[in-house]
Amino acid sequence: MNLSGIVGYPITPFNDENGHVDFESLAKVIDTLLAAQVDAIAALGSAGEAAYLTEDEWQQVAKYTVTRVNGRVPVMIGIAELTTAQAISRAKYASQVGADMIMVSPFSYYKLNEDELFLHYESISNATSLPIMIYNNPATCGIDMSPQFMLKMVSDIKNTIMIKESTGDIQRMHKIYKLSNGKVPFFNGCNHMALEAFNAGASGWCTAAPCLIGKQAKHLFDAVKQGKNEKATALFYQQYEFLEFIVLSGLAAAVKSGFSIQGTPMGGPRRPLLPLTDLAQQQLKTMLLELNSHA
Amino acid sequence: MNLSGIVGYPITPFNDENGHVDFESLAKVIDTLLAAQVDAIAALGSAGEAAYLTEDEWQQVAKYTVTRVNGRVPVMIGIAELTTAQAISRAKYASQVGADMIMVSPFSYYKLNEDELFLHYESISNATSLPIMIYNNPATCGIDMSPQFMLKMVSDIKNTIMIKESTGDIQRMHKIYKLSNGKVPFFNGCNHMALEAFNAGASGWCTAAPCLIGKQAKHLFDAVKQGKNEKATALFYQQYEFLEFIVLSGLAAAVKSGFSIQGTPMGGPRRPLLPLTDLAQQQLKTMLLELNSHA
Amino acid sequence: MNLSGIVGYPITPFNDENGHVDFESLAKVIDTLLAAQVDAIAALGSAGEAAYLTEDEWQQVAKYTVTRVNGRVPVMIGIAELTTAQAISRAKYASQVGADMIMVSPFSYYKLNEDELFLHYESISNATSLPIMIYNNPATCGIDMSPQFMLKMVSDIKNTIMIKESTGDIQRMHKIYKLSNGKVPFFNGCNHMALEAFNAGASGWCTAAPCLIGKQAKHLFDAVKQGKNEKATALFYQQYEFLEFIVLSGLAAAVKSGFSIQGTPMGGPRRPLLPLTDLAQQQLKTMLLELNSHA
Amino acid sequence: MNLSGIVGYPITPFNDENGHVDFESLAKVIDTLLAAQVDAIAALGSAGEAAYLTEDEWQQVAKYTVTRVNGRVPVMIGIAELTTAQAISRAKYASQVGADMIMVSPFSYYKLNEDELFLHYESISNATSLPIMIYNNPATCGIDMSPQFMLKMVSDIKNTIMIKESTGDIQRMHKIYKLSNGKVPFFNGCNHMALEAFNAGASGWCTAAPCLIGKQAKHLFDAVKQGKNEKATALFYQQYEFLEFIVLSGLAAAVKSGFSIQGTPMGGPRRPLLPLTDLAQQQLKTMLLELNSHA
Repeated sequence: MNLSGIVGYPITPFNDENGHVDFESLAKVIDTLLAAQVDAIAALGSAGEAAYLTEDEWQQVAKYTVTRVNGRVPVMIGIAELTTAQAISRAKYASQVGADMIMVSPFSYYKLNEDELFLHYESISNATSLPIMIYNNPATCGIDMSPQFMLKMVSDIKNTIMIKESTGDIQRMHKIYKLSNGKVPFFNGCNHMALEAFNAGASGWCTAAPCLIGKQAKHLFDAVKQGKNEKATALFYQQYEFLEFIVLSGLAAAVKSGFSIQGTPMGGPRRPLLPLTDLAQQQLKTMLLELNSHA
Repeated sequence: MNLSGIVGYPITPFNDENGHVDFESLAKVIDTLLAAQVDAIAALGSAGEAAYLTEDEWQQVAKYTVTRVNGRVPVMIGIAELTTAQAISRAKYASQVGADMIMVSPFSYYKLNEDELFLHYESISNATSLPIMIYNNPATCGIDMSPQFMLKMVSDIKNTIMIKESTGDIQRMHKIYKLSNGKVPFFNGCNHMALEAFNAGASGWCTAAPCLIGKQAKHLFDAVKQGKNEKATALFYQQYEFLEFIVLSGLAAAVKSGFSIQGTPMGGPRRPLLPLTDLAQQQLKTMLLELNSHA
Repeated sequence: MNLSGIVGYPITPFNDENGHVDFESLAKVIDTLLAAQVDAIAALGSAGEAAYLTEDEWQQVAKYTVTRVNGRVPVMIGIAELTTAQAISRAKYASQVGADMIMVSPFSYYKLNEDELFLHYESISNATSLPIMIYNNPATCGIDMSPQFMLKMVSDIKNTIMIKESTGDIQRMHKIYKLSNGKVPFFNGCNHMALEAFNAGASGWCTAAPCLIGKQAKHLFDAVKQGKNEKATALFYQQYEFLEFIVLSGLAAAVKSGFSIQGTPMGGPRRPLLPLTDLAQQQLKTMLLELNSHA
Repeated sequence: MNLSGIVGYPITPFNDENGHVDFESLAKVIDTLLAAQVDAIAALGSAGEAAYLTEDEWQQVAKYTVTRVNGRVPVMIGIAELTTAQAISRAKYASQVGADMIMVSPFSYYKLNEDELFLHYESISNATSLPIMIYNNPATCGIDMSPQFMLKMVSDIKNTIMIKESTGDIQRMHKIYKLSNGKVPFFNGCNHMALEAFNAGASGWCTAAPCLIGKQAKHLFDAVKQGKNEKATALFYQQYEFLEFIVLSGLAAAVKSGFSIQGTPMGGPRRPLLPLTDLAQQQLKTMLLELNSHA
């Protein structure tokens, strides 16, 4: 598995009338990401509202995504469960439907210590042969794993081979790079730090932004790789307010709203999550108009 | 509903062999709390590992607790769900099995704003006639609600009538008291701040401590109410290390271990949670011996 | 030295025209504190704007305060210097002018480690025979000392005999009490936690409040000592908004403004500190009217 | 004033026997920085222990630095005073001895609000014609100024023309760049974020590192400017542990120790600051050997 570049995150559209997952719209989301030339697709992450789906819905979305992508790019499935048993069950399902990889984060009610976390990851690894991306996102998952600890898991647990870091602290990436001599691939999950993450050695950027701004994430990646630093800086600052906005407004709500603004209604997020306010929708509309005029 | 004093929190025992809820042991837990003269019992809180139960298990524990308590004290049921629909469904179930009250906290993947939180509570209130205790515990639930906002909900949402504050910041209690002119009852959920909470005007203390130290929580409450301040201070400091220990070690694991130490095996918590280490068990044993020699 | 109760903090008045220390007004401040029945007076603390005085001014205020108090209550002198040499020089001066005690906090540009802090306190202790109160106030001094470390200093350094804790975290007081078996006296420096500090075992309360509200701080102390808990709670909440206000507005500016409001003009604080805004003055006036109607 | 690149920070050597400033050694420090091809020299910053000097010493170091540099590069003088009057006095002195610029940070005992900060900067600006770099370093100065507020000062106060940001939060730089349309020059003061700061648009890097590692800071700057990103990343990670080390160990102590290790004894820092421990000196020695073998 040699992944680099842009990992695109689909949202999960719901039918506004009956609340069910709307697979027809999900197809459009996936096609939008592929058209934006993402290097992989990661279903059932934060943007996908995985935490708010029932067991059945979760399985259907996992299966549908693999089928729809149909091998054009690798498919990763996000797993963030409160119990180890449930995480194992989902890992097996992901494998069974043909996913290429799983992205695993702890999810906490009680804070977990490192022994608990290690065993959680190890148990999941033992239950599947899929490669595992260790995902650290304390803001949503309530657990913060240090670079040292994640590298220890990469070293000691069979299938854990890469890291996604979403704290937004660039020093975490420095530590991962330095402590692993640049050998363990890591991905950036903090949208508004994308430029610096690439320069700090990140293999790629995990983002829902391509749902709304097409190839612009990819262009930023390419500019950095080509040493076109003035261009990279300019591209980043063009996207900056948009990237910060979708994080601060809640990814799912913001991306759904952006699709609607651009002509493809996607419904709202699931309660207690609310759609963007009118004011926020207006701000997003202005940003998207401006941004997509550059494309 | 005029609740004051000690609200006791049962753990949920699992059978170590098959992992199922062990209702025979749960009966012993509930009886222990009643023997400790708690003024109410709150099932399915943090101590009860509610977050780690399946839907079926959750329902069985709710129902069993009401039945076992059998009206001797009021029963509160904890509800901390990711979706509003699921919280409503559980509130209805609690009502149906005869609970006296529900304790509702948000539980988050995405952070929720106040509009989302208000609607969440309001929807639950509209679905039941049970009184609601608003429960603020950012350390486990990932959402921090201000005193101002919780008081607004108490004022504007029909069934929300009291607050449980678990941040451990005494200033929050000052604000609740002051802003409501002492009119809105609040309970302390931070074990190692029990003494100060009573003095700051808390109606009571929500705690799993009586599972292990009998009436000592009640004695502390009584000493404060009787103005025996030297005694209250002494009682508090006797319990202090124990109270801090069970919070820092994880309530469920610590209380289960304490039961076993005192001769009533309760099994371990559910994975990824792990039982106390041998060292921690030894520390707890020493504390309990010392503490229960005072009783 | 057996200190308990209320330790009163004078402000340092400046002449608004020439900016010099106004000793005639300082006399009035000291007399106000004595009339409020404080158990000691601590000059040159935060309220006294010690950090903003020249060397000469500092010495004059120290000497004047001792002279004016004239043995009626013990006088403590605050010392918070960037260099150890300067702290030693001031400790000697305090001794020379007849102070009864010094209150020493670190003051930092670089953060200091515990070796540096220990040596700092030890050097000061070696330079004087005055008893030393160790003062922890990270919000102003930029250094946070743990209860464990401060107790180690009390144990290992000759003249350090008591602690003033101003973090506002009640758990710090629990630790000091518990780890010293209630043997090391500690004082509360967080105004709006006064009630809880007394209950947690604090020997006293360090406060500038008596400059403006007379004996009300003392009454709170007495009510707690007498086990009149309902009265204590009521007295505390009467003062609560005022106590929080003077901390949040800046003690020196707020207390000076309060004196002026009550008919004794004291000028403003020294630049860059600004006097209260008109709005804040109006709020303070309302609070003081209300509070002093109870007295 | 069109400053870019590396701004070098001298330490202030003291004679270990009499504690006085050692100007002969200071000459060597300045010459070392010039040999490392720094683009400017900033005396009396954190590295220079300005906070620990007497008034006389401060003046002598300011004057000596300007004289020694003798126009080869611009000289900036750091000013971080508790009172506005003292800051003005130092600004005038800097001007009088021929400095090219001043770098002004607030320094706090009481936290300052934005009105107080604005007036502080404005008063200094009115007292001198020197250009002012606004310096934000909450870790040492106790005050955190937002990008928005600093940009407001750049816009509204005559001589404030650039910003030094030392929080280590890359988002601050994004805000400065974005809100000023890339028009307001900003410098990075967080050593171990140097790579990202350049990519985020920083004009330069304020650092004491060239005291010990020669032109390597400059080479990093050049690599980024030339779009040699792989080289830049490699250079940065070569320096990374060293850069983090000197910050975490305390700049003054670490740089002085590094000089001594490399054959130019510089004495220790001023008490309460302590020299590096033996272990830390050994670590630094290893790092410097490794690093300077690349040079």
